[in-house]
Amino acid sequence: MIGMKGYVFHGPGQAAWEEVPDPDVQDPTDAVVRVDTVTICGTDLHILKGDVPEVRPGTVLGHEAVGEIVEVGADVRTVQPGDRVLVSCISTCGRCRFCREGMYSQCLGGGGWILGHRVDGTQAEFVRVPFADLSVHVLPAAVTNEDAVLLADIFPTAYEVGVLNGRVRPGDTVVVVGAGPVGLAVIATARLFSPERVIAVDLAPARLEAARKLGAEAVADAREEPEQLVADLTGGFGADVVVEAVGVPETFELCTRMVRPGGHVANAGVHGSPATLHLEELWIKNVTITTGLVDTRTTPTLLKMAAAGRLPASQLITHTFPLERIEEAYDVFAHAAETGALKVALGGPRREVVPVAEA
Amino acid sequence: MIGMKGYVFHGPGQAAWEEVPDPDVQDPTDAVVRVDTVTICGTDLHILKGDVPEVRPGTVLGHEAVGEIVEVGADVRTVQPGDRVLVSCISTCGRCRFCREGMYSQCLGGGGWILGHRVDGTQAEFVRVPFADLSVHVLPAAVTNEDAVLLADIFPTAYEVGVLNGRVRPGDTVVVVGAGPVGLAVIATARLFSPERVIAVDLAPARLEAARKLGAEAVADAREEPEQLVADLTGGFGADVVVEAVGVPETFELCTRMVRPGGHVANAGVHGSPATLHLEELWIKNVTITTGLVDTRTTPTLLKMAAAGRLPASQLITHTFPLERIEEAYDVFAHAAETGALKVALGGPRREVVPVAEA
Repeated sequence: MIGMKGYVFHGPGQAAWEEVPDPDVQDPTDAVVRVDTVTICGTDLHILKGDVPEVRPGTVLGHEAVGEIVEVGADVRTVQPGDRVLVSCISTCGRCRFCREGMYSQCLGGGGWILGHRVDGTQAEFVRVPFADLSVHVLPAAVTNEDAVLLADIFPTAYEVGVLNGRVRPGDTVVVVGAGPVGLAVIATARLFSPERVIAVDLAPARLEAARKLGAEAVADAREEPEQLVADLTGGFGADVVVEAVGVPETFELCTRMVRPGGHVANAGVHGSPATLHLEELWIKNVTITTGLVDTRTTPTLLKMAAAGRLPASQLITHTFPLERIEEAYDVFAHAAETGALKVALGGPRREVVPVAEA
Repeated sequence: MIGMKGYVFHGPGQAAWEEVPDPDVQDPTDAVVRVDTVTICGTDLHILKGDVPEVRPGTVLGHEAVGEIVEVGADVRTVQPGDRVLVSCISTCGRCRFCREGMYSQCLGGGGWILGHRVDGTQAEFVRVPFADLSVHVLPAAVTNEDAVLLADIFPTAYEVGVLNGRVRPGDTVVVVGAGPVGLAVIATARLFSPERVIAVDLAPARLEAARKLGAEAVADAREEPEQLVADLTGGFGADVVVEAVGVPETFELCTRMVRPGGHVANAGVHGSPATLHLEELWIKNVTITTGLVDTRTTPTLLKMAAAGRLPASQLITHTFPLERIEEAYDVFAHAAETGALKVALGGPRREVVPVAEA
């Protein structure tokens, strides 16, 4: 492990794949994981833009990975070297008030979203994972690395913050605003509840096409009166559930206009600025608005569904790269409008550069 | 009934107690009720200001009353002349999509909030009540008119839109912003769920005192850092449930700053303008925000609690008047800061003017 490399943030607009110190067990609850498959999250792009100021220069980015345990601390009981594991985006102390309620995102004991945020992350050859017993998941053999890595963040985020918070029920009309990776995963997991229809709203034709492939019955160009389409399909009432998966004020406000009386708006987008809440219209409308960072409390369930072939997770991967070509992968991911990238998978030195063929 | 009188809206700033046509049965589901006790709602003041433009000049105001049925249409089955009834602020067709889901506020069949809004209301000697079978409640003998009239709107609003939407649970810290009639009723009904404490926030010392009498363990002047008090009482986390019972952007935004991660903000205020929703802080905080007009689906439960002496409803009545002195009653109610008025009860010609003594 001498001279291992990681993708290091050096301040807004600056990052590099470069040598970093080897991670080791610092606390007895730590594990060290060899990273075999990793991906890039939209949040990483926010960090690079400088939108997440608590990330210190010098931090290795990344909070999603699949790999093999190579070392564990003395207090780790449930995993051991050699185990193939999913590294969750949320670390879990398991002891604090919020962890005891299953709200791991708000962990007070040093966990929560820390990887690639407050401590070195997964976009590296090895990564130290704190609270290993509760923060990695041993993978069933039937789940591929490519499926699993999307269950580190994207799929539980979509399922918990979009579908469960939005309380999707059989027969519902569900609108998903934003057909990026999280929005597409909302479509895929909303279908587990047998909605009447899912309507995807986005600007990019390629994303709307991906939404159709994942099961959206209708799609709408965000520029072409999606509110009218939703009204037409719902007898003028609006959608039962609207999921915001973009993260800008305009799309959030659009969501609040498309929800029916008594419906739910579930915000899954990462927002950098305030939105206008039209309480003068909404106070009388019996709506519920939720926000949330993923807790990853459903990751075991989603792994079980993936093992059963019921989650099309890796369908979101459009490009693969060897790990050391991560700078190129960031470039492809950051210019998704031109490259058509949804998720990029980086897979260690054995993997070739493969723009994934159209399904 | 020749020459009966009602309180008639004549456009913004103009209303009068004057002769109006006798109400009669127009539809076979109607009842006509002799009004024995009636009250004035903050919403009536909004109408008088011109904030509710769909109220046509010439409309009799009022949507809360207790009285006696004097006539019923041919299709009315469950009430009959002579019954003492509560007239609910929400009329219920019972047949539409939303009524079938118990969301009577959104009735599509001609009901919803119609009295004193789209049809003549209860501030009159007699009132026509559409959909009588589902829109009036026969009163148990143990419930006084004064207790019952507060169950026409204020108490179910507080209970459904504040307490139930906010999902108050045993052990919770509940903050109520605005200790007017609805806020005070939130305090009284939140206590049914055994919260650890209720904290009332208002500007008026008299209202904070009323909040204490109704069971608030702590009160805060809205000008003196209520956020700090809430933080101090909750170990810095914030409240489990915050209920907005004012209806202006500043108080709504205050609520979103006082809620803990994973907590609930229940909006019960009637808003006339948009608020700023600080999604850049809230997206990560797992909060739930609800809005709603009362459905009055809990009115039977609340009547049962009142009959059992478990709801201090009439404690909110600070002033009583004979019905024909309603203009004076409006004046007292509209100048609550000076008069100390919470709810005013108007009770027909038999009643004397009684500023209610301090409890």
